[in-house]
Amino acid sequence: MPEFRQNRATKNWVIVATERARRPHDFITAEETKQLPEFDPKCPFCPGNEHMTPPEVLKVDKDGNWLIRVVPNKYSALVPDVELKRETKFQFFRKITGYGFHYVIIESPKHNLTIATMQPEEVCEIFKTYLKLYKSFMSEQNLNTVIIFRNNGKRAGTSLEHPHSQLIASPIVPTHIRHLLEEATRYYDDHGSCVFCDMIKIESYSGERVVYEDEDFIVIEPFASVSPFETWVMPKKHDACFGNITESEACKIAKVVRLVLSQLYEKLNNPDYNYVIHSSPFKDAGEEFYHWYIQILPRLTIPAGFELGSGVYITTALPEETAKFLKINKGEN
Amino acid sequence: MPEFRQNRATKNWVIVATERARRPHDFITAEETKQLPEFDPKCPFCPGNEHMTPPEVLKVDKDGNWLIRVVPNKYSALVPDVELKRETKFQFFRKITGYGFHYVIIESPKHNLTIATMQPEEVCEIFKTYLKLYKSFMSEQNLNTVIIFRNNGKRAGTSLEHPHSQLIASPIVPTHIRHLLEEATRYYDDHGSCVFCDMIKIESYSGERVVYEDEDFIVIEPFASVSPFETWVMPKKHDACFGNITESEACKIAKVVRLVLSQLYEKLNNPDYNYVIHSSPFKDAGEEFYHWYIQILPRLTIPAGFELGSGVYITTALPEETAKFLKINKGEN
Repeated sequence: MPEFRQNRATKNWVIVATERARRPHDFITAEETKQLPEFDPKCPFCPGNEHMTPPEVLKVDKDGNWLIRVVPNKYSALVPDVELKRETKFQFFRKITGYGFHYVIIESPKHNLTIATMQPEEVCEIFKTYLKLYKSFMSEQNLNTVIIFRNNGKRAGTSLEHPHSQLIASPIVPTHIRHLLEEATRYYDDHGSCVFCDMIKIESYSGERVVYEDEDFIVIEPFASVSPFETWVMPKKHDACFGNITESEACKIAKVVRLVLSQLYEKLNNPDYNYVIHSSPFKDAGEEFYHWYIQILPRLTIPAGFELGSGVYITTALPEETAKFLKINKGEN
Repeated sequence: MPEFRQNRATKNWVIVATERARRPHDFITAEETKQLPEFDPKCPFCPGNEHMTPPEVLKVDKDGNWLIRVVPNKYSALVPDVELKRETKFQFFRKITGYGFHYVIIESPKHNLTIATMQPEEVCEIFKTYLKLYKSFMSEQNLNTVIIFRNNGKRAGTSLEHPHSQLIASPIVPTHIRHLLEEATRYYDDHGSCVFCDMIKIESYSGERVVYEDEDFIVIEPFASVSPFETWVMPKKHDACFGNITESEACKIAKVVRLVLSQLYEKLNNPDYNYVIHSSPFKDAGEEFYHWYIQILPRLTIPAGFELGSGVYITTALPEETAKFLKINKGEN
């Protein structure tokens, strides 16, 4: 029997469509993983081709070679060299100049790595870089939000093979995030607690959808997953904003993210995916009602007209089953 | 220079990324349109294969042959034969039984047609069927919303070639729609008018983004389009709910939708797309602040991690340019 489920944090409903339900192994990617070279002379992110990108704004070095380079996106969605200005045409059409920062984090000198196949220490450096960048933007007066995300594979919106993630720092607080904050505030008003903290406690107690858990983090397939194998990596310590954490915490979550992505890589045969760090806007960084976390979304299905019209996702896998399929025992890491 | 633009109705921001801007003709699909037979013996929607679908709930006949068949979806996301029941587990996880209706509207006996290549009268019958179904659900006590949508092509989420659209009637009002209604209410409180009615007047006056206009409808590329060639077909007459219109109005909009889809078919070489009829929940059918319309979304780009995290879409085409490219002169229809 199909059912509606509601994510208590986002308040979004989904439909778990059992009539068309598929087993976890039905989602294993049939495509063979392309064998890539360690170095591609044409790749703008490979060592030796540094001139093919804008000059770097940050670098992590080791023994005179770079391990990580942060560069402005050559096709930036937002640009820093413009005055922040609002304009309204016909007293109706609102626009703001595209002020902001759009960076690419080149995660490794090696062309053929991905988070799943990197060493834990390498992923730790990536997350420490995220944190450093995030913190640096928090003091910029004209900025309000930072979105850090990774697009892996064509179905996830990238054709660049070299391992990289991206960061966009923006002056606006998106309406989408305003709504999330509102819903979380209402929960806080009703219950006196953070909805994400409650979710962590209850998921841990129930255990049904837990993929991994240790002292500091829980990894779950959300009760109202929007699509098969949606995965949330949640820190147990309450904090609204990713920019508030310490380097050592960044390193810890990096290792958990790597563990989960390795598991997806193995079990689903290297699926395309996006991940994104959800975090409060800077001004809400101290709030008791919001909670930062990482959402991993394998791109195994295509949202269509119904999702467009309703915002309700139809999913064809049970989170309880995908959690069991992905389960990581603590000894494995 | 890139810019943020806000859709005043949905309140969503988008980024128009001029650094990576592409010209309208860059979006012409390179794939050749597959030549389909008029009849496919294996297709469950072709005449003679009626036994391959669940029994029809509605039919449009002509001279003893069917022109349109409406059947329950074989893999229904929602089902009618279940009691509507709410349940909360651990006082946290909310679910509702998947009560509702999920229909497929088989739009033609011919396997190789699509709206763009049908006769105006054929599309008129399809929209009259939508309306009949919509109205029939409005009196059902346990239902609140109807979403009518069409997925055309693989990138739009369907692999079935036979022309069809779908309808889902549901007991819940999606959070997404609640938010849209809230934003529209606020605009109404601030300005004393429907934000959609104002949008129609101002777009018509400005003319910059108008693809087509007649006495009854306007077709625009929205000021804050979420992706290249997003197109809205809007009735000038204020009405919150699609279910309120007359058969003759349904027929008129059908002809406009056909005109626009034919133009997209010609100019972009048969792109994959979704369309959806946005309409108020039944209980808001008389509201002065909401307005039904049809959104057409060609699937030319892939939303990625940034969109997932922020709800802000980055678009790489200027709506003013795509409108000019699509422009339909009144004589053409």
